[in-house]
Amino acid sequence: MIKDIANLHAKLQILLARQKNLYNQGRVTNYIPALAEVCPKKMAACVATIDGSSVGAGDYQEAFSIQSISKVFGLVMAMNRIGDDLWQRVNMEPSGQPFNSIIQLEWEKGIPRNPVINAGALLVADVLTSHFSASKLAFLSFMRTLAHDDTIFIDNHVYQSELSHGNRNAALAYLMKSFGNIESEIPDVLSHYFTQCSIAMTCEQLATSLLFLANKGVDPITKKVICTPRDAHRVNAILSTSGMYDQSGEFAFSIGLPAKSGVGGGVVAIVPNYGVICTWSPPLNSFGNSVIGTNLLANLAEELGLSIYH
Amino acid sequence: MIKDIANLHAKLQILLARQKNLYNQGRVTNYIPALAEVCPKKMAACVATIDGSSVGAGDYQEAFSIQSISKVFGLVMAMNRIGDDLWQRVNMEPSGQPFNSIIQLEWEKGIPRNPVINAGALLVADVLTSHFSASKLAFLSFMRTLAHDDTIFIDNHVYQSELSHGNRNAALAYLMKSFGNIESEIPDVLSHYFTQCSIAMTCEQLATSLLFLANKGVDPITKKVICTPRDAHRVNAILSTSGMYDQSGEFAFSIGLPAKSGVGGGVVAIVPNYGVICTWSPPLNSFGNSVIGTNLLANLAEELGLSIYH
Amino acid sequence: MIKDIANLHAKLQILLARQKNLYNQGRVTNYIPALAEVCPKKMAACVATIDGSSVGAGDYQEAFSIQSISKVFGLVMAMNRIGDDLWQRVNMEPSGQPFNSIIQLEWEKGIPRNPVINAGALLVADVLTSHFSASKLAFLSFMRTLAHDDTIFIDNHVYQSELSHGNRNAALAYLMKSFGNIESEIPDVLSHYFTQCSIAMTCEQLATSLLFLANKGVDPITKKVICTPRDAHRVNAILSTSGMYDQSGEFAFSIGLPAKSGVGGGVVAIVPNYGVICTWSPPLNSFGNSVIGTNLLANLAEELGLSIYH
Amino acid sequence: MIKDIANLHAKLQILLARQKNLYNQGRVTNYIPALAEVCPKKMAACVATIDGSSVGAGDYQEAFSIQSISKVFGLVMAMNRIGDDLWQRVNMEPSGQPFNSIIQLEWEKGIPRNPVINAGALLVADVLTSHFSASKLAFLSFMRTLAHDDTIFIDNHVYQSELSHGNRNAALAYLMKSFGNIESEIPDVLSHYFTQCSIAMTCEQLATSLLFLANKGVDPITKKVICTPRDAHRVNAILSTSGMYDQSGEFAFSIGLPAKSGVGGGVVAIVPNYGVICTWSPPLNSFGNSVIGTNLLANLAEELGLSIYH
Repeated sequence: MIKDIANLHAKLQILLARQKNLYNQGRVTNYIPALAEVCPKKMAACVATIDGSSVGAGDYQEAFSIQSISKVFGLVMAMNRIGDDLWQRVNMEPSGQPFNSIIQLEWEKGIPRNPVINAGALLVADVLTSHFSASKLAFLSFMRTLAHDDTIFIDNHVYQSELSHGNRNAALAYLMKSFGNIESEIPDVLSHYFTQCSIAMTCEQLATSLLFLANKGVDPITKKVICTPRDAHRVNAILSTSGMYDQSGEFAFSIGLPAKSGVGGGVVAIVPNYGVICTWSPPLNSFGNSVIGTNLLANLAEELGLSIYH
Repeated sequence: MIKDIANLHAKLQILLARQKNLYNQGRVTNYIPALAEVCPKKMAACVATIDGSSVGAGDYQEAFSIQSISKVFGLVMAMNRIGDDLWQRVNMEPSGQPFNSIIQLEWEKGIPRNPVINAGALLVADVLTSHFSASKLAFLSFMRTLAHDDTIFIDNHVYQSELSHGNRNAALAYLMKSFGNIESEIPDVLSHYFTQCSIAMTCEQLATSLLFLANKGVDPITKKVICTPRDAHRVNAILSTSGMYDQSGEFAFSIGLPAKSGVGGGVVAIVPNYGVICTWSPPLNSFGNSVIGTNLLANLAEELGLSIYH
Repeated sequence: MIKDIANLHAKLQILLARQKNLYNQGRVTNYIPALAEVCPKKMAACVATIDGSSVGAGDYQEAFSIQSISKVFGLVMAMNRIGDDLWQRVNMEPSGQPFNSIIQLEWEKGIPRNPVINAGALLVADVLTSHFSASKLAFLSFMRTLAHDDTIFIDNHVYQSELSHGNRNAALAYLMKSFGNIESEIPDVLSHYFTQCSIAMTCEQLATSLLFLANKGVDPITKKVICTPRDAHRVNAILSTSGMYDQSGEFAFSIGLPAKSGVGGGVVAIVPNYGVICTWSPPLNSFGNSVIGTNLLANLAEELGLSIYH
Repeated sequence: MIKDIANLHAKLQILLARQKNLYNQGRVTNYIPALAEVCPKKMAACVATIDGSSVGAGDYQEAFSIQSISKVFGLVMAMNRIGDDLWQRVNMEPSGQPFNSIIQLEWEKGIPRNPVINAGALLVADVLTSHFSASKLAFLSFMRTLAHDDTIFIDNHVYQSELSHGNRNAALAYLMKSFGNIESEIPDVLSHYFTQCSIAMTCEQLATSLLFLANKGVDPITKKVICTPRDAHRVNAILSTSGMYDQSGEFAFSIGLPAKSGVGGGVVAIVPNYGVICTWSPPLNSFGNSVIGTNLLANLAEELGLSIYH
């Protein structure tokens, strides 16, 4: 499907070169010390397609903290595990609020707006904690399977840093528990959640691991069924309306792909029937999305004509 | 493109027949008396495709009040008239709030979340009122051009009813004006807005009139450029994240098409590179969307495999 | 009761002299042009007691725009006119929100939190507009009776300025009307409200006119019953919890008297069984309360030992 | 000061008799099991005056869970300990929100509106936990000193019940910690808070223990200075605007005394320069205040003419 790999590779390099000096238009996250240490000049893009090809440029084989991108994988695991029961406990509407707002949660009696805001991802973490005997291992194993790579690891330094700065997530979790919407003990839920956020992966691994969402639930390389076509559809829909925090609407408006970002600076975008694009650059804009990562996606989507909205 | 018109026609009839007894699962809107009078058993579906074909079933040639579906047309007119200046005055994010909430508007200092909630549509109405010498006529003329039908009319009975029940919209408009985000006089803005909401159209006319959004901005029948490809993309993106009030996420999740509903019971859905589906049935669910209209869309999208998310 | 008038007069002069250079710690309101023109160095204090004495200092015989202080008088008129029916339409709880917030009103379905925030005062204005054939004249007449002074007037320059900057109050009024909580036409309600806000009075007149609230509802000079003892109690309670906008709690905490301020820079404080203090200085703090006016009240209350909380 | 003790005693008995059948107009709290077990027909009133007299009726010598009434004592301890630094971390404005709302706390960046809503009381608990080596013992000892009674005890059954139903308070505490407004570890803060809530006292003990607030900070019986006159004033002011949850305004409006209620069914009211009234009856109204307890206070305040607002 990538008809001319050399050509795409050249394109990626040109696009990256153009962004080289823009790293100071954003700020590396500092909400946890471990992430604040990352070099702001790191930059990468990788395109993986459902025919099994992949092309990368920049630091696309360097692992970074996937952070909120892990929410996509957690969601798929939970959907697989408990089916539609999940949607009794979390909604699928865009939030219209900054990503970690507690206000919405209070209004809506402990039901998170969707599974890719923090409250929703904590709820998903509760599902996993309650339904797997060793949810952290299961999660890591799921990632390794999807990326076809057993070297994927949990960055313990990041994990420890998360743990000691997790008061806001604790507040969200206790609030949901007070509404009866959390089953496990909060420390266990938080521990699972921070573990999955602390996984380190490369752009290439991330792009590969999400190909099933572009391919109706089937890993195009191993032919393994990862989820139902319906659930692949649903995840793409949720990422389209809610994947880029409170910039999701603008991202749809100007780029037009289901996507998820993380405060580690990574962004993944699903192109149905085509493949997955993953970009990385640590400096974030005011919405918590990678400045350069978003720019790269916009340029690539435009050049390759990949939007789902026309 | 509709390869087998007879076949699709039969399909539509079967789908309608299945919904026949569901009209009492919703309620005909009663926020204005004129709309409360509509027969709850009316039901229609029409598919128009970019090759110029169209197939309808039920009351698809009976005019109903387009209400909020008019927001789509107003948005296109305003984009055409003032270009990107529009996006200084209205955002493009999903609202995460019931469709006429004044709270968000207050928080965000008079900048509506997007142009298809009431506050945003009133802002668009202000743009039209300020930039056209006779904005109501210009609007009606635009509709007639798009639908290729000069008989389209404003239902004056509905208009008068809107006018005398417009206090909430007046509140939204005055609030925006207090933040300096409305230029015209409020009574003029409201008069324009209620006029465009009071236009009566059939499913067939609505489906035809929106074909340009499925065709990169070009009316596929007349070949006229209605808007830029970019703006067609943007409108589809906004409809995908925000077109179905506070059920937009669920609509994307389960159906997967850019769409807009109105409290008159109409729903339009854009299928990029294919065509437009318009359904109609007056009884609404708790979100303000047509119960049967939404069901019909879901069935059609599923049968024809039309979602943008896979 | 003012045992030593000469002594109190001297005290007032000393207190005013101490505040002389503090006028630049606040800002003269500029929400309407007419009020922005007032000299920021004006300053006055007047104490009237229920034995009929009164002592003033500074510009205490110069008229200023009473603005929100008029809410106290409107409330008393409405209580007298419709009795406890009033409390079906307005609550008596502190608002916990900036004085003109529309959010609370939306949450609580068009029922204002209390009658001395803007929404509540507009509701009271609706009661007066609906129940008096000439509510503006009735209001002015009430003020003249209370102040024993037929020269009290409406400042038409201020009134016109209010009218052309009343969008936010219009939004509040239309929102309440949309909930069915306003009976009259909005332009009539606004016209009444802006009229009562535009009345000009001196500190001496204001202090005198509110003596009945310190005297169980009876004007101590004319012996006329202005309201029931119960209603005098209720007004004092409302002023104690809500009279100073979102600084009401701090005012109770540090000064401890039922009080009402206006953006014209006036502040009135009721001392049950003693009298009324009125101060005036146009520059306002961030809460909309007169900086110097509040300081003067604090000093006087302390020196005379007037708090109701010990 | 209680001129005719026999007379007052008779009065109390008549008032209690009148309320006898009203216990089913409210509901005994069920937010923790331990409190749900209390007999709904219990009823008591006690008046203690600053001359050292006290008169009680009904179950006024039976201990009940003081719950939120403990917030008053915690506040005094914290004011004594850290002085005005306290007001950097908690505001003194009425909340205008149900008593445990997390929304306000989020809006105002972790600064509670006042020290007698749950968030504020948790902040005060943090101050005590951080500044006393054994804050629970110090608290109990403070209560025993004030009540002149060393038998006052912590109800361990209630404490355990609180601990296992404290998720909402944990959410509030973690949210404040995320804003940097909590110093101690959350489990310690919660443990202290639940301990003070679990203290059991009688109406007579409570009335006696708060006499210092009616007497400018001095225990009228032991002549000990419990707090400064200024702080007694401040506590009374806060109780007047915020002591009765979201019914504080109505309580001021109709009764007119600084007061604090607890979900155990107790209510205390301070009458400056006179004394303290304490009532008890477990069934609560929708605001969380004792139905009969409030009625009794209203009747007593009216008969004895005790309001501070006239």
